[in-house]
Amino acid sequence: MKAIWLDHEVRLRTDLPEPSPAAGEALVRVRLAGVCSTDLALLDGYYPFSGVLGHEFVGEITAAEKAPERVGERVVGAINLSCGHCSECRACRPSHCLNRAVLGIKRHDGAFAEYLCLPLGNLHRVPETVPDSAAVFTEPLAAALQIPEQVHITPSARVLVVGAGRLGQLIARVLALTGAELDVVARHAHQRQRLEGIATRCLQESEVATGGYDLVVEASGAPGGFALARKALRPRGTLCLKSTYRGEVAVDLSSLVVDEIRVFGSRCGPFPAALRLLERQHVDPTPLVDARLPLAEGVHALRRAAEPGVLKALIDCH
Amino acid sequence: MKAIWLDHEVRLRTDLPEPSPAAGEALVRVRLAGVCSTDLALLDGYYPFSGVLGHEFVGEITAAEKAPERVGERVVGAINLSCGHCSECRACRPSHCLNRAVLGIKRHDGAFAEYLCLPLGNLHRVPETVPDSAAVFTEPLAAALQIPEQVHITPSARVLVVGAGRLGQLIARVLALTGAELDVVARHAHQRQRLEGIATRCLQESEVATGGYDLVVEASGAPGGFALARKALRPRGTLCLKSTYRGEVAVDLSSLVVDEIRVFGSRCGPFPAALRLLERQHVDPTPLVDARLPLAEGVHALRRAAEPGVLKALIDCH
Repeated sequence: MKAIWLDHEVRLRTDLPEPSPAAGEALVRVRLAGVCSTDLALLDGYYPFSGVLGHEFVGEITAAEKAPERVGERVVGAINLSCGHCSECRACRPSHCLNRAVLGIKRHDGAFAEYLCLPLGNLHRVPETVPDSAAVFTEPLAAALQIPEQVHITPSARVLVVGAGRLGQLIARVLALTGAELDVVARHAHQRQRLEGIATRCLQESEVATGGYDLVVEASGAPGGFALARKALRPRGTLCLKSTYRGEVAVDLSSLVVDEIRVFGSRCGPFPAALRLLERQHVDPTPLVDARLPLAEGVHALRRAAEPGVLKALIDCH
Repeated sequence: MKAIWLDHEVRLRTDLPEPSPAAGEALVRVRLAGVCSTDLALLDGYYPFSGVLGHEFVGEITAAEKAPERVGERVVGAINLSCGHCSECRACRPSHCLNRAVLGIKRHDGAFAEYLCLPLGNLHRVPETVPDSAAVFTEPLAAALQIPEQVHITPSARVLVVGAGRLGQLIARVLALTGAELDVVARHAHQRQRLEGIATRCLQESEVATGGYDLVVEASGAPGGFALARKALRPRGTLCLKSTYRGEVAVDLSSLVVDEIRVFGSRCGPFPAALRLLERQHVDPTPLVDARLPLAEGVHALRRAAEPGVLKALIDCH
């Protein structure tokens, strides 16, 4: 089969065998996949991964030995493959499984391919009314929903999202639903345009008020976002970290003590809630699509996604 | 009056006038004061303060124009003097008042003196059965109680305190009351000895299990404590920052995202709860006293407190 393969470089391969589902897994024919900043970070060596890239997808089950009734189901998939027996799995935190593989990120071939395999429990049925072009956003939308999963956001809160890229746009759409005042730091005109009717205000970095926000979400994807996010928080405010990148950031920890700031990291989130929001059309991610290319041009799709200002690039896998 | 005065150096002064209470303030005759690591940090230039040092004390009200019935009352005092009208005060966070002065730390003369002034609302009556030698610990004990004020600590939690100095010892005593398993990183034999019957185990840094704890409190007073605390946390664990020091620490923010770690800064806490714990004798801080000197030897008390391994130094102010 065809797939986008990463080892020392990224390339199209056409010589790969169709993957074989392990016990409890299903074979999924990938319909549409999305390029995430994590894919681009993997190209840059953020984490040493070799294999098929990609972890955002919608597809259909074509084989499932343990659940033949699910064959033909249109599905999206949670990306963490947990072991079920480590201390984290036993403590009901399977996404933190100490032995986990991660679709297209860690020890498990990903979604930029004609077929992929995932455990049946990871696969969530897509409601009929949700088109592929929206369903393909389920994984990052779930990641955005992990923020209200972890912290109580009141309707009267003053919220700032730092960064209006792929993930920042989805976070803004989710946080707007709380009714909170929502400012977004958006550098580029095309980012601001996609936030019309969603954000209260789009700001440049220099316009961010010091100490003005109850909750700040750092989704800039760059180390510099932390200092801006910190500066924007009121005393006892909450800083949500959504960006991953290589390297360390110099932090004035004493200032976190004096102002009693809360910081929390946030990663994967609830798929069922993401699908409900798509089904209810409370979130429409489709205006974020800037490019859509066939799998044979998947490497080009990655290049397009890396261009400044490009939001979502999709890959048609069949 | 006599007082320990800091400007470019620290010294005993005997030429100071008795302070005059502002409207709403009381004049307090200081009986006993405690040396805190923050006092030592001020000597090192952590914050540019000039005036009478000291913020931990027990004393008695000798004048209070607006509450003459309180004259003679034995009291301890909360250290933040808030303005009452800024956005933080209006939001019921007076300890974060944007215009605050702080006893012996910021724009308000402190407790290493024969007399001090504080607003009546800051002064809490000490129960009769609590001796001065315990009451003088109310302020740092309240700071330790700010941790359970901010975060839910379950009786089944695995808790680690990094640092067994002045504040770490009080934090250990407070967290032990939750019933949680409580390990403490304590370098020195005399620190470990004061934790007998309180900590589950005292550990050296090298003995701390990676990923073994639900909650870690960083109270080492040194930048190196952060990396140890971080390493000790399980995924989705909570890191409480209690240390203040100058400078920045290099932090791998992405690892906080991947492991969904929560970090929160913690400063001043509830005096009434601290006084209740002292009255009930659930916490006995008096074994932490390593030195007790008269006010005339206050500079020597500061030097003693700075010696490695010395826990609390007290100053008799009358």
